[in-house]
Amino acid sequence: MKRIITLLAAFSLTGMAAFAQQALGPGTGIISPEINPDHTVTFRYQNRKAVRVQLTGDMLPTQKRTVNYGGREQVMESAGIVDLQEGPNGVWTYTTQPLTGELYSYSFIVDGVRTMDPSNIYQNRDIATWTNIFTLSAEKGDKGWYYEVHDVPHGTVSHVWYDSPVLKAKRRLTVYTPAGYEDNPKAKYPVFYLLHGSGGDEDAWADLGRATQILDNLIAEGKAKPMILVMPNGVYFNQAAPGAAINMFQPTMANSRSQSTEEFELAFPDIMTFIEGHYRVAKGQYNTAVAGLSMGGRQSSALIRRYPTKIGYVGQFSGVVVPEGDDDPALKAVFAAKPKLFYIAVGSADGVKVNSLKLKDYCDQKGYPVEYYESDGGHIWRNWRVYLTQFAQKLFK
Amino acid sequence: MKRIITLLAAFSLTGMAAFAQQALGPGTGIISPEINPDHTVTFRYQNRKAVRVQLTGDMLPTQKRTVNYGGREQVMESAGIVDLQEGPNGVWTYTTQPLTGELYSYSFIVDGVRTMDPSNIYQNRDIATWTNIFTLSAEKGDKGWYYEVHDVPHGTVSHVWYDSPVLKAKRRLTVYTPAGYEDNPKAKYPVFYLLHGSGGDEDAWADLGRATQILDNLIAEGKAKPMILVMPNGVYFNQAAPGAAINMFQPTMANSRSQSTEEFELAFPDIMTFIEGHYRVAKGQYNTAVAGLSMGGRQSSALIRRYPTKIGYVGQFSGVVVPEGDDDPALKAVFAAKPKLFYIAVGSADGVKVNSLKLKDYCDQKGYPVEYYESDGGHIWRNWRVYLTQFAQKLFK
Repeated sequence: MKRIITLLAAFSLTGMAAFAQQALGPGTGIISPEINPDHTVTFRYQNRKAVRVQLTGDMLPTQKRTVNYGGREQVMESAGIVDLQEGPNGVWTYTTQPLTGELYSYSFIVDGVRTMDPSNIYQNRDIATWTNIFTLSAEKGDKGWYYEVHDVPHGTVSHVWYDSPVLKAKRRLTVYTPAGYEDNPKAKYPVFYLLHGSGGDEDAWADLGRATQILDNLIAEGKAKPMILVMPNGVYFNQAAPGAAINMFQPTMANSRSQSTEEFELAFPDIMTFIEGHYRVAKGQYNTAVAGLSMGGRQSSALIRRYPTKIGYVGQFSGVVVPEGDDDPALKAVFAAKPKLFYIAVGSADGVKVNSLKLKDYCDQKGYPVEYYESDGGHIWRNWRVYLTQFAQKLFK
Repeated sequence: MKRIITLLAAFSLTGMAAFAQQALGPGTGIISPEINPDHTVTFRYQNRKAVRVQLTGDMLPTQKRTVNYGGREQVMESAGIVDLQEGPNGVWTYTTQPLTGELYSYSFIVDGVRTMDPSNIYQNRDIATWTNIFTLSAEKGDKGWYYEVHDVPHGTVSHVWYDSPVLKAKRRLTVYTPAGYEDNPKAKYPVFYLLHGSGGDEDAWADLGRATQILDNLIAEGKAKPMILVMPNGVYFNQAAPGAAINMFQPTMANSRSQSTEEFELAFPDIMTFIEGHYRVAKGQYNTAVAGLSMGGRQSSALIRRYPTKIGYVGQFSGVVVPEGDDDPALKAVFAAKPKLFYIAVGSADGVKVNSLKLKDYCDQKGYPVEYYESDGGHIWRNWRVYLTQFAQKLFK
């Protein structure tokens, strides 16, 4: 109760009143996480009554095991868990090994219950679970560096509503326009449509994927072309993300995923029509890119199969449409339209790797030019941020 | 550990791997908060090992006490705290009395430690403190109803960067353009500049204040004019909110407040110049409103004193500039410029009420037309949302 009492005391000093003003208190007074000069990171959590406090997060060595997917043996990984040590005043601490540049996610486990770090305001929501985050930039230009905000020109990030006649609904989009868009009223820009995965929404790539920081930094470094980035909601029966949608629904895999990509595919031209009607767009196949992760990867794969002459660059991150039969006509049409980039990326520990390889092997056999990238790790955001950082640098050049 | 184990099990089933994918688990499986048909609300929290679980929040009766500010006795309030009862499977519960329509904030206190409700993804950050929230709409048109998202046309919410030559910095703004703005390329709109309080930032009014939902709903009901709402960062030495600013700083009262409003006042024309240069603005005094809460109320008060002929509507929520001497020349100039609305609002339990009354009494004595509104409660967001809802309906008519 000590902190609460301190905070209540603070009100009477400041003349502030009532619950909301607890925020006017001094916070926890604990520094966590603390990034040390040697790039080790110290976590601290104050709890005088807890019996056991643990840390789980992707900065810890993963627990590995070998499993069999579709006849292929592969190593699967799951989150590491370590114990914090209790010190004076009930402050529990743990310090990691030196870490490389990355955006890391973590939670505490207090006597078996997942708990947020109350000393760190930075957190991400993935479907129904919040986790704390921090970025570590080991050196300029490493992964972590691209995920951080730097003193570079920043694009505009807008949440806009468009009309989808196909889905008979108003739906929400997150749209990034690059720095300079507002001040160059004659310039036209290519468009990159970026799709989230199951359980996600139109905020996921910006919040979990750091897409706007990655583009700000790549464009400032001259490594990516200035482009408009459009992040739709890929679940055809959801109008918007939690908070922007009607009713405060709790997202689940069930209410935030599309088993079928067809409805979204058929409604995709509604998004292009809105964007081309409301932004200064350089139109045409070679000014149009589509990519996505997991379900969004399958949707990207399906979209270029359905609209081969409209999409010049496709990125299939941890999700693809597997070719049908020995001579898939849709895929033949895709390559007949000569896309400039047909990119497949997946993690070596990802259960969907088998499907990505099926697509790659099929294309290799047919002589279809594809770019295949296999990273370490599984079906996780830290991979999808890497794929986005790679893919964005290959566009519109 | 049960939940973690369940989640890890989920990976092996789905082939998903590693920490981030814990989010692909089923959530807590607990419904909290649950709004019952009689508008009582049931809170649930699962913890098998906790000895005591409490709930604190602004839906509970406040603890009242009388104190003396500036020679005036007034009742101060602080947050109520109640105990949850433990039931089967370590699920702790508490059910409130029937509640009126409102946005409510709460936290659990688990063996003395403030803890988020892991079953409710909805939360707000006020300075350094996250709290869970929920809205309750008792009937159409009550307070809570205006804070919810309804099936009405939605405006666009953009995060844009502007250049401030006065502050020699690029700074971030949150800008709301009303529904229809994009589709009426000839229409021009009045502008309402809305300022946050100490410890806040350019996201505070949208996140904690529900400003965009309030405007969407008021405009849809025909109760407010379509307008552009501009929410700047009022702390002259901060470029942007945490997350959008360089470095993941932890906000505090110290690093997120301006003791002096002068730097912001002098740089305010940079914001107007940017907005008028990049949006379709109906210019002039009677198309310009400024309001703010606490520090932002002082800033609003100071801005109309400094620019009396540029501002036609001013709202001073829980913060004012107290007149100097018997014949304050700045205030005389303000009313010589004939503002259409000079609005002062404060809570009866707010420590700054004494200053608001000084300004009101001074204006009454001078015969300056002011609108004074005194609500219940203290220096809290639930009051500022009410003042915004009132003030926005009086603008540009």
